[in-house]
Amino acid sequence: MPALMASSELAQRVLAGDRSALARAITLAQDGGEAGRELIRELYPSTGGASVVGVTGPPGAGKSTLISSLITRRRAAGSTVGVLSVDPTSPFSGGAVLGDRIRLAEHFLDSGVFIRSMASRGALGGLAAAALGALLLMDAAGFDAIYLETVGVGQAEIDVVDHVDGVLLVLVPGSGDSVQALKAGVMEIPDVIAINKADHPLAQTTLREVRGVLALAPPGSPRIPALLTDALSGEGVAELDAALEAHRARLVAQGALAARRRRNLRNEVLAHATARWRLELEERLEGDARFEALLDEVAGRRLDPLSAAEQISGQRDGA
Amino acid sequence: MPALMASSELAQRVLAGDRSALARAITLAQDGGEAGRELIRELYPSTGGASVVGVTGPPGAGKSTLISSLITRRRAAGSTVGVLSVDPTSPFSGGAVLGDRIRLAEHFLDSGVFIRSMASRGALGGLAAAALGALLLMDAAGFDAIYLETVGVGQAEIDVVDHVDGVLLVLVPGSGDSVQALKAGVMEIPDVIAINKADHPLAQTTLREVRGVLALAPPGSPRIPALLTDALSGEGVAELDAALEAHRARLVAQGALAARRRRNLRNEVLAHATARWRLELEERLEGDARFEALLDEVAGRRLDPLSAAEQISGQRDGA
Repeated sequence: MPALMASSELAQRVLAGDRSALARAITLAQDGGEAGRELIRELYPSTGGASVVGVTGPPGAGKSTLISSLITRRRAAGSTVGVLSVDPTSPFSGGAVLGDRIRLAEHFLDSGVFIRSMASRGALGGLAAAALGALLLMDAAGFDAIYLETVGVGQAEIDVVDHVDGVLLVLVPGSGDSVQALKAGVMEIPDVIAINKADHPLAQTTLREVRGVLALAPPGSPRIPALLTDALSGEGVAELDAALEAHRARLVAQGALAARRRRNLRNEVLAHATARWRLELEERLEGDARFEALLDEVAGRRLDPLSAAEQISGQRDGA
Repeated sequence: MPALMASSELAQRVLAGDRSALARAITLAQDGGEAGRELIRELYPSTGGASVVGVTGPPGAGKSTLISSLITRRRAAGSTVGVLSVDPTSPFSGGAVLGDRIRLAEHFLDSGVFIRSMASRGALGGLAAAALGALLLMDAAGFDAIYLETVGVGQAEIDVVDHVDGVLLVLVPGSGDSVQALKAGVMEIPDVIAINKADHPLAQTTLREVRGVLALAPPGSPRIPALLTDALSGEGVAELDAALEAHRARLVAQGALAARRRRNLRNEVLAHATARWRLELEERLEGDARFEALLDEVAGRRLDPLSAAEQISGQRDGA
């Protein structure tokens, strides 16, 4: 009968790799309610087996198409693959969710591939928690490799570096802003860089620029591979896959994977705690007449913002 | 005698427009200590008179040079001007602080212009608070116009939109990533857009692309002007200055400036409170054996990150 499953029955089905159960579990996690939290609590001991790669880059760089090519290779090697695309929703177009799904469509009928998109609309503040929950659920469902796709220009709602084993940055000829951002140290240096659309006349120039930036790294820094790829023709995808594998193998060999994961988990715990506190604060202050009166004081320049913040924090401690 | 001034004497000198006092006051605010907070508390009632424009865009777009041209115009109109450049420090080059200062050098001897750079190195977590403090101090010192310059690609450490009266986005031909980000809705739509380096062969193409994106705005959205500028030749700078003034005049006429400032101040108060809480949390957990034991549980997959975060929050409430 189609009644609500008990959390533990759903958990068992996720562990068994049941795709519809996994889809439901992710929806529960996205809802942000107690049921989703309970499910993750239950399944967390079964996680940690997946290799998680963050794929980031400006919109239009071809991240989804490149992931699709990487999936084909991983599948041929016998691995199962999960993909989580976190799409900021556009106020103009309604977001790229559909487009991404189309690019990954060739894998939809493959039972060894699970694809999920998550839009930021309606998940304000909770998107990071929802995405990290989805990653854990895919991990528990036994997928060997997971790709977390996020947009890496502008407001990155998920700081992907903090939650994955390796970061792939996808650029294209014309990604001048990202190259400048790397050069200025504004953007974090990833573990592997792909210049996608290798047949573009300026591809070689962009590759040289990127390698020029990477050559400025201080001595002793890890060597970051930068490669030309073409997701449509498949050019360079084998080399890219190998570079990602080599990065992970190096981490494991140096014993650095455990340290990286511990650092990531530390950040995750602190971020959850802070987000929780902020959410409680906003809920508590919603429609609170005393807070509005406090804001009147600040807007009237009689009380400065820091002192107002101290008063709020003080209230909290006393509550 | 060169002893430490009392906060209130320093405050008086800042109010009188004393530049060396202002410089010292900003350093105090940047230190993050009680003296700086006390000073801002004291001066806050004297703020709110300045028009604050945020200038954002990718590294290398020519933000500083464009600000320099805008300063020349404002000065000719009899206004005094403050500039705060927030420079993310590069792990490679040590940051762009020096370069920015050189571009603004022609105004160094003008007593009606005050320029300050702030690097993110060493201000981790506290940069936003330090920058907002500096803005308030410049405002109290009586500057008519203040430009807050930040880098707008990658991790924006200060969400400039939340703290200014108007936002100018500076792009260049080659800013493909930013145009894509605007189009995808990943980057917030600013109030005015300048395509700088108007003599570049692709300047017109980029202008058309940007206008194409802006044309997709839903009906009833404010019309965002996009202009070609050339900071070196001065081309388009008068039009840019006028567009920024027109934006502000429109806000004032609609009574929207007060609403925008109240929204900004609300965000600022909440952000200060959250940052304060996070800082206290990190200090409390630094070297805490129980927290490390909790992380061991998480790293060992025996406790999930959300539950760990709940335990931390619980401790806090009970403490």
